[in-house]
Amino acid sequence: MSDAETGTVYLVGAGPGDPDLLTVRARKLLDSADVVAHDSLVHDDLIESIPASTRQVDVGKRPGPDGERTTQEEIHDLLVETASEPASVVRLKCGDPTVFARGGEEAEALDDAGVDCEIVPGVTSAIAAPGVAGIPVTHREHASALTVVTGHEDPTKAESALDWGALADQVAAGGTLSILMGVGKLPKNMAALETAGLDPETPVAMIERATYDDETVVTGTVATIAERAREADISPPAVTLVGEVVEIREAVDACLRSLQRQTGRVSSARLRSD
Amino acid sequence: MSDAETGTVYLVGAGPGDPDLLTVRARKLLDSADVVAHDSLVHDDLIESIPASTRQVDVGKRPGPDGERTTQEEIHDLLVETASEPASVVRLKCGDPTVFARGGEEAEALDDAGVDCEIVPGVTSAIAAPGVAGIPVTHREHASALTVVTGHEDPTKAESALDWGALADQVAAGGTLSILMGVGKLPKNMAALETAGLDPETPVAMIERATYDDETVVTGTVATIAERAREADISPPAVTLVGEVVEIREAVDACLRSLQRQTGRVSSARLRSD
Repeated sequence: MSDAETGTVYLVGAGPGDPDLLTVRARKLLDSADVVAHDSLVHDDLIESIPASTRQVDVGKRPGPDGERTTQEEIHDLLVETASEPASVVRLKCGDPTVFARGGEEAEALDDAGVDCEIVPGVTSAIAAPGVAGIPVTHREHASALTVVTGHEDPTKAESALDWGALADQVAAGGTLSILMGVGKLPKNMAALETAGLDPETPVAMIERATYDDETVVTGTVATIAERAREADISPPAVTLVGEVVEIREAVDACLRSLQRQTGRVSSARLRSD
Repeated sequence: MSDAETGTVYLVGAGPGDPDLLTVRARKLLDSADVVAHDSLVHDDLIESIPASTRQVDVGKRPGPDGERTTQEEIHDLLVETASEPASVVRLKCGDPTVFARGGEEAEALDDAGVDCEIVPGVTSAIAAPGVAGIPVTHREHASALTVVTGHEDPTKAESALDWGALADQVAAGGTLSILMGVGKLPKNMAALETAGLDPETPVAMIERATYDDETVVTGTVATIAERAREADISPPAVTLVGEVVEIREAVDACLRSLQRQTGRVSSARLRSD
C-alpha cells in the first residue's frame, strides 16, 4: 500500500497534564492532523488548542446519553477506518502511549489492518508527577531502581498479575515504586506491600492531578497513607510513590514553593497534611 | 530573597535525543534563558537551536586541553554562581532530570544555597527508546510492571546496589526491565540475571542512539545478547530492554518500517542481526 492509499496513525503521548509538557513533535502532529482521537483525561486547554477544522473524537466514552466507555475493539476500528479515508490520525493518550495506555495493542491492531503507525513518546506521569512535586524517582544515595505498575489492573483477570512480594523486595533493596491509577485499591495495595514484608514506616506520597492548577500532594507511610488520602479526599487521577526518595521532598520543597509563589506555576504543590 | 536578588535554575529534561522530543515548556525556557548548562550527550541540533546570545556551558567536561569530567561539586557551584548573577539558568539533561541524572542532588544543593529551582520533566530514554523501536514497555497481556535501573553504577560503591534476584523475579513474573547505560557491563549484568534464575531464553533488545538518524536495534536473549551486541559493535549510549514485550516488535515492525521508508524518520530501526 502506498501513502496515497492509506493514512497514518500516530500514537502520541500528551504528557502528564500541563499542555506545555507536550513534546514539540506532538504539537506539530496535532497542528497538522486531520483527526484527533483523544482520551477523556487529556487537559482541556490542550483539546482547545487543536485547530477548529480538525475532526475531534473523545474515545473515552461513546457518544449519546448513556456515555458508556468505548471498548478497545471500537477504538481499533475507529483508528483503522479514519486512517483509511486516508487521513493523518493522532491518537492522543495521557502520559506515554506505551505505559499502561494500550499503545502496544493499538499498534498491533493497526499492523494487522495494514495501516502505518508511529509511536511518539510522551512524558509519563509515573516520573513527572513526583518530579514536579520535588521528589526525584531515583537518587544516587536513596534509590537505584524505579518500578512502575498500575494499581488498577484488568478487571477480567481473576488474580493480580503483580508480584507484590517482588515489589516489596525492590523497595526494601533501595528502589522506588510508582503506582499509576492506584486510588481505588490503595488500602489493598499498601496492605499487600506490608504483608510481603515491607517496613510499614516506608515513606509514601500521593500526587493528585499532577501539573494541573489544583495539584495536591499528600505524604505519609505505607501504614498511614490510605487514611491520609481519605482525609484529604484524594481522587483519580493520582500517582502513588513509595520509597525513601519521598523524604527528599522536604529538603527541596521550600525553594520549589518560593518559586511557585513568584510565578504562579504549580511546580510544587499544596501540602494538605503533614 | 526576592526574585530580583537571585535567579532560578530550571532542571530540564532534553528527552531521548531527537530535538522534537523536547517539551514545549523546555523549548520556551531554552529560548529565554540567560545561561544553558548542558550535558555532553545532548543532541547537536538542540544545542545549535539555542539563541546565540545565550551563554552556553558544556558541563560534561572541563574546559581546557585535558577535558576531564566536571565533578558534581563543580556543577553545583556553577549553577549557584550563575543563578546568583542573577540569571535564568537552564540545566539541560538528557532524558528526564530525575532518572539517573542527579537532578535530585542538584535540587538539594540549590536549596542549600537558597537558589530557586524547578524540575521540568522530560521524555526518558528508558521508555522512549524501546517505544520508537516498536516495543511497548508495558502490555496488558505481556507486561504488568516496568523496572528502570542503571547498568553503570556509582564506581565508588564496593558492591552493586541492585538486587539482581528481585529484578530477575520481576521479569519472570511478567515485568519489563529497562537498563540505562548498560553497554559496558552487559555480559556481567545478563549473567547476574541468569544466575538469579531468569530463563536464559527471555527476549532482550538493545537500542543504540535511540531517535537519532543512526539508531540501531539488536535483539537476542539473556543468553545471546552480549555476543550479538559485540558483533554489532553496539556502543554507548544504548538502552537494554529485557522481557516478553521485545517479541511484540516483530508484529509491529513491518508497519513502522514502511513509514520510515516514506518519511525518512527513524521511527523504527535497522535490524543488524536477527
